[in-house]
Amino acid sequence: MTRRRVRGGIGILAIVCLATASTGQSSARQAFADPLPSWHDGAAKQAIVAFVGKVTTVGGPSFVPIPERIATFDNDGTLWSEQPLYFQFEFALARVKALAPSHPGWRTQQPFKAALDGDMKTLAAGGEKGLVELILATHTGMSTDDFTASVIEWLRTARHPTLNRPFTDLVFQPMLELMAYLRTNGFKVYIVSGGTVEFMRAWTESVYRVPPEQVVGTTFETAFQIDAAGQPLLMRQPKIEFIDDGPGKPVAINKFIGRRPIAAFGNSDGDLQMLQWTTAGPGARFGLIVHHTDSVREWAYDRHSQIGHLDKALDEAPQRGWTVVDMKRDWNVIYPFQK
Amino acid sequence: MTRRRVRGGIGILAIVCLATASTGQSSARQAFADPLPSWHDGAAKQAIVAFVGKVTTVGGPSFVPIPERIATFDNDGTLWSEQPLYFQFEFALARVKALAPSHPGWRTQQPFKAALDGDMKTLAAGGEKGLVELILATHTGMSTDDFTASVIEWLRTARHPTLNRPFTDLVFQPMLELMAYLRTNGFKVYIVSGGTVEFMRAWTESVYRVPPEQVVGTTFETAFQIDAAGQPLLMRQPKIEFIDDGPGKPVAINKFIGRRPIAAFGNSDGDLQMLQWTTAGPGARFGLIVHHTDSVREWAYDRHSQIGHLDKALDEAPQRGWTVVDMKRDWNVIYPFQK
Repeated sequence: MTRRRVRGGIGILAIVCLATASTGQSSARQAFADPLPSWHDGAAKQAIVAFVGKVTTVGGPSFVPIPERIATFDNDGTLWSEQPLYFQFEFALARVKALAPSHPGWRTQQPFKAALDGDMKTLAAGGEKGLVELILATHTGMSTDDFTASVIEWLRTARHPTLNRPFTDLVFQPMLELMAYLRTNGFKVYIVSGGTVEFMRAWTESVYRVPPEQVVGTTFETAFQIDAAGQPLLMRQPKIEFIDDGPGKPVAINKFIGRRPIAAFGNSDGDLQMLQWTTAGPGARFGLIVHHTDSVREWAYDRHSQIGHLDKALDEAPQRGWTVVDMKRDWNVIYPFQK
Repeated sequence: MTRRRVRGGIGILAIVCLATASTGQSSARQAFADPLPSWHDGAAKQAIVAFVGKVTTVGGPSFVPIPERIATFDNDGTLWSEQPLYFQFEFALARVKALAPSHPGWRTQQPFKAALDGDMKTLAAGGEKGLVELILATHTGMSTDDFTASVIEWLRTARHPTLNRPFTDLVFQPMLELMAYLRTNGFKVYIVSGGTVEFMRAWTESVYRVPPEQVVGTTFETAFQIDAAGQPLLMRQPKIEFIDDGPGKPVAINKFIGRRPIAAFGNSDGDLQMLQWTTAGPGARFGLIVHHTDSVREWAYDRHSQIGHLDKALDEAPQRGWTVVDMKRDWNVIYPFQK
């Protein structure tokens, strides 16, 4: 190559950099910029960067080929907030209200009466049975297409009860950066959540850039039918098929993905077995727990919380080498709108 | 840009082309070569090429964005042969023989005695119940890792009873070309099979280039356990969880993929509902049935066959616009080793 052509090349590169820098999309800039700007430069961030560096170093002892770079993320409390109620439960309550006119009996019948009255005490007293009843009444009995439409409509209009924001505003900016950083490094990013799969798939692609086929969750039985007009449809049946929580998470990962992840991210004891399964595999592995410690910017809760209960997993973290994120100290921004 | 630099660019391109052509990996060559050389230039091939052209034409009325280009393939009889017995059943019979020394009772106990004696008549007389019993005895009761190892070991040593070839030699060359052609055009290719998912995942990546997370199939219940040494493992339970056949196929597609495919490929009535569901969607859709018509090079069977029974789907094909492949006329090669 002649000296002249090399110089020309540098000139073109400079022009490209100037042009793209002005639109904020320079890959050259991104390569040198901090990929995790919302993370303080503490032990958690350093552990993430060290792990990604190790598994992507070609020829290194911990190198992992791209197809095996599977990362699984819990959703509630790990990618978005989950207080004062799981957001999917807010959806169920809103749907009870929307559907009430065609169910006059609900005005007097529990747990529907409590849901319509916003009577959280009675709802909580009804325990899991009542909650499941509300979920079944609002999540099943319709086609898959109609259900997805109801989630999208709710997201468009609903607001968080205390923060008065659309629920999809309440995702964690540091975790968005982390997912993008992993993808840039050849990882396939999955969500593995106790939430029901079709509730999440309605919005995970636009909010998290996670496509439907990379979302694993709790499922309902579904039936294939041909309607009167000869059109096939899938009807959601009022029966839970599989609960993707606790020991169900590694089972679902095996069923849906068929590979053991090399990195897993959670925030509660519902993620304990996913973290155990992921980090017990051979080679470099990474487990991370988001510890909700920020009562001012988000919520602070762990061992004594009904939602996002974090106890055993927090105890096991040191001995298993899991990284524990202290939200208050490790994240300089919580939500994207605070940037 | 100076004329000199343009010439230099062409010179470099020419060198690159020469270099890669000699290794047989020139993308320029592939772009102009026939992507489906094992297909005769008949109606089936023309329908495939026309469909792919339509959905990939940017700005055209039938354009489909890449993330929505989902194609689902049945496995037995669609991607590899399935006669005289489903190959997975050959695996089960071989495993009964391998496991017999530690199960002395099997010598006198049906259906195991018939399996050990190669007594197909008695096995057939035992119906589905007997077959399920053999499948459970050979596919469950071990960890997921141990099961995968048993499939890989079987594939290494087993031979087809009449063709005396490794089973993975008996895949259809025209379908390998079709899957590659779709992938080149931005499709994500899935297998959706009545076979059990972990049996297939042990070899689909090396044989079909379909990774584990793109294989959907029949599943067994699986339990997460921690062994005496503190290691987590997944134990396969002797209970079928979900049968991915007939109406189960669109249900599983919805559960695992969460998007309706735009193209589906099958060969039997077990694929009927997958074809209906796929082709009833809006926009350009493609359904294809492999009709086994070649008694010399493969097998000829359809309406009266117990394995690969093809009756209703064949009747519905014309009215629903599905392409029917006549193996004898449409394929100039069946297996890769005949090329």
